[in-house]
Amino acid sequence: MAGELPSVEACLERYIPASDLADVKRILYGGEARKLNLPDAALSAAQERDFELLGYGFDAAPEQLRRPRIVRVGLVQNKIPLPTDTAVAVQVAALHKRIEEIVEVAAMCGVNIVCFQEAWTMPFAFCTREKLPWTEFAESAEDGPTTKFCQELAKKYNMVVISPILERDEIHGGTLWNAAVVISNSGAVLGKSRKNHIPRVGDFNEVRYSIVIVKLVLPCSSCFCQHALYQSSHHDLGHFYGSSYVAAPDGSRTPGLSRIYDGLLVVEMDLNLCRQVSDIWNFKMTGRYEMYAKKLTEAVQPYFTPNIIRE
Amino acid sequence: MAGELPSVEACLERYIPASDLADVKRILYGGEARKLNLPDAALSAAQERDFELLGYGFDAAPEQLRRPRIVRVGLVQNKIPLPTDTAVAVQVAALHKRIEEIVEVAAMCGVNIVCFQEAWTMPFAFCTREKLPWTEFAESAEDGPTTKFCQELAKKYNMVVISPILERDEIHGGTLWNAAVVISNSGAVLGKSRKNHIPRVGDFNEVRYSIVIVKLVLPCSSCFCQHALYQSSHHDLGHFYGSSYVAAPDGSRTPGLSRIYDGLLVVEMDLNLCRQVSDIWNFKMTGRYEMYAKKLTEAVQPYFTPNIIRE
Repeated sequence: MAGELPSVEACLERYIPASDLADVKRILYGGEARKLNLPDAALSAAQERDFELLGYGFDAAPEQLRRPRIVRVGLVQNKIPLPTDTAVAVQVAALHKRIEEIVEVAAMCGVNIVCFQEAWTMPFAFCTREKLPWTEFAESAEDGPTTKFCQELAKKYNMVVISPILERDEIHGGTLWNAAVVISNSGAVLGKSRKNHIPRVGDFNEVRYSIVIVKLVLPCSSCFCQHALYQSSHHDLGHFYGSSYVAAPDGSRTPGLSRIYDGLLVVEMDLNLCRQVSDIWNFKMTGRYEMYAKKLTEAVQPYFTPNIIRE
Repeated sequence: MAGELPSVEACLERYIPASDLADVKRILYGGEARKLNLPDAALSAAQERDFELLGYGFDAAPEQLRRPRIVRVGLVQNKIPLPTDTAVAVQVAALHKRIEEIVEVAAMCGVNIVCFQEAWTMPFAFCTREKLPWTEFAESAEDGPTTKFCQELAKKYNMVVISPILERDEIHGGTLWNAAVVISNSGAVLGKSRKNHIPRVGDFNEVRYSIVIVKLVLPCSSCFCQHALYQSSHHDLGHFYGSSYVAAPDGSRTPGLSRIYDGLLVVEMDLNLCRQVSDIWNFKMTGRYEMYAKKLTEAVQPYFTPNIIRE
């Protein structure tokens, strides 16, 4: 895959003259995030450990009654270090080791919340259906080896860890879930979130996955972290799906990490921006949520008839 | 506003080398629509009448049991021809005349459904609050002069007309609505759709309107026409907000019309593509709509308590 585009942003910056670049970026991406100065020690550690390290910040207006609520979030994207036919436990251990190297640098950057990529302890195998050996990567969200590993990281670095894994739920007959475990900076498991809508689009198909990227990278109206997925399961794609970035509630976003290299994106954000933007748009005040709840409740009835007018 | 970007697509095509352009366009826009050959007479009429005329097509796979259902849709974007301090009736008449010129060319292109821009009979004044003289542009959706004008166009050209106007609803105390009237090719008013969520974002503010553009031009998962808005009310912006384009259910889209000139975009589409894409993704089969209806119904209750876990 030599010659693949490292990122759309880099390509725009390379070729489009400054006179038009600002307009193009504003239309495509909204406002720009400010660059964050990161410690030299972190930058050189990232270079030694062979991953990209970028930092950006989103600011909020000062308020009289609330102090700024500054949080640093770190998004990690990483390749799988070993071939997918290596023993499962060995692959997982290698991923734990790689993540530990990156999280140590995140700590040097003052990260408060670190987020790993979807199904980070395994090759991204969801597109292959649930079968061996991929199902053996599934773990308990509450006390599996990966959660225990993350609890140690959380305590060591005083960091909240968002750990998305393939979950095996033994209480409900061994059900598999695409879940994200939330581990407090104290090391306690605070809870988990499960994907409840997993689309089925036949066997793996690169075109369809491309469409997934397009849909996933849309900025949304609340603070939002977009994570790249690394693909190396039954088809070798070699590179990430999309690239990791953070979008702010005002529609601005950071540039994405490279689509080719491992990376850590550190983003400083003032959480006060959430309510500030909400108060500008007032969607929660002006939106007709009761109407939507009523309409949706009607539409899911088995004998619902849509309102189609014919002559 | 000399030097404003005519369109992002044109800028990408001008500067980015062919080796990278295909990747950039695929990531930003999905698949490309095919170019449509339009009659020479239509192209020269558009040139004489000083508007851009572009044509594209979306194809579907052949099916055994359904014939293709080919429809040509025309999107019109137009500046207001007269200054905003001209008498209301004179401004409306000038817009009717301009639209008639463009619809005649749409008919030459075989358009079956023509769509005018939001609040097409007036300067785009929603951002100024509802006040005189803008409120005088409001009309009855069922038998106002603009609906009567569109009924004549529909019959003359055997064309469905989507006519978005500022509606005055006399039955409910003269309420104003941002509505779209649907007129059958027979000339009958089939119905109307009203915007039910009109955000309030303070007084007019260019930055906020820029955000609106970014949000509006997102491709959505069903067949979708994005219309530019022309702004020339209490602040003179001079140009369109965004540009008109059509996105197909598979996420591909046509390029946009110019952001500076009047235009007509003719798009041929096979409606069979809608169910074909729906059957690939199966969202309606796999989506948990009953759960969403239940969750939303709970969340709109006045004493709803969100599930927040604290240590």
